[in-house]
Amino acid sequence: MKRNYKKEEFPVENIRKFLEPGPIVLVSSKWNEKTNIMTMGWHTVLEFSPSLIGCMITAANHSFEMIKNSKECVINIPTVDYIEEIIAIGNCSGRNTDKFKKFKLTIEDSKKVEAPSIKECYANFECKIVDTTLLAKYNFFIMEVVNAKVASFPKYPKTVHYRGEGTFMVSGKHISLPEKFKPQNL
Amino acid sequence: MKRNYKKEEFPVENIRKFLEPGPIVLVSSKWNEKTNIMTMGWHTVLEFSPSLIGCMITAANHSFEMIKNSKECVINIPTVDYIEEIIAIGNCSGRNTDKFKKFKLTIEDSKKVEAPSIKECYANFECKIVDTTLLAKYNFFIMEVVNAKVASFPKYPKTVHYRGEGTFMVSGKHISLPEKFKPQNL
Repeated sequence: MKRNYKKEEFPVENIRKFLEPGPIVLVSSKWNEKTNIMTMGWHTVLEFSPSLIGCMITAANHSFEMIKNSKECVINIPTVDYIEEIIAIGNCSGRNTDKFKKFKLTIEDSKKVEAPSIKECYANFECKIVDTTLLAKYNFFIMEVVNAKVASFPKYPKTVHYRGEGTFMVSGKHISLPEKFKPQNL
Repeated sequence: MKRNYKKEEFPVENIRKFLEPGPIVLVSSKWNEKTNIMTMGWHTVLEFSPSLIGCMITAANHSFEMIKNSKECVINIPTVDYIEEIIAIGNCSGRNTDKFKKFKLTIEDSKKVEAPSIKECYANFECKIVDTTLLAKYNFFIMEVVNAKVASFPKYPKTVHYRGEGTFMVSGKHISLPEKFKPQNL
């Protein structure tokens, strides 16, 4: 089944809600008129505002040079119903594959970057590279999320979280205990 | 119920299995004969071998100076049955609280660092700080996991993954599809 999430603009300072739980994401990029998509699991939130994300992208990936050169990408959150595409995207290369075409994914124009958003994903976070201090040594990009679109339903996406060895954990139920927090720590 | 996991030594290059899914972790530290524990959600795997982890720890946290000064800590993985402790540890300060005592957690000697491991946690990853290039600007520590202990049962821990606003996602079922991967990508 093709997903057709109805998405709305979302405050960039709140996207930790979707990235802090640690889902596998699809990173889309554009350089020299070509697009690409990669599967990524090594990322962390770094700051609320500006909305900063740190990502480790292996230099051997075709996307590495595209993101480094264009200084942009989109972090897209796919849901578990796309598990086959998530794996296949991570197991072929943009050097010889048009991944949007091969996996029948739809390019959606982004608002603030040239890199395309993936229509079938639950959320799209448009990013600009803001710091490459650790790029040479650790392949670590620091990005600012400059625009965010998130599905208005369901409340939370059913995401996949990689453990290596071909095994994914699927996001489960939720526990909400805000009364146990100090307001400033929520 | 107090957890009493039977833990075994675990290869440090494979710990992505437990951290890449993005769980909330408890970070224990020791400095000037005092111990402390903090709750952390902003971390990422950076490399298999050496086994590197990147962590953002707000400078206002009591643990920040302890870890910066001692150049060590232990990343402990708590399971959902400790949700109350996970929240409470993140909502009080080591400046005026002995958290091991207050939360009835047991200090277990670590093997390669002075920082204590938490006995009740599913896994303990002993870390040494190896890079502080981004500490001043982003409070970002790069750590090497120098020793790991992981429970031999169950196969995977039931972890909690924070979304903000007092809400946690609990890890769900697993999907294993190694046959869909190229062997070098597993």
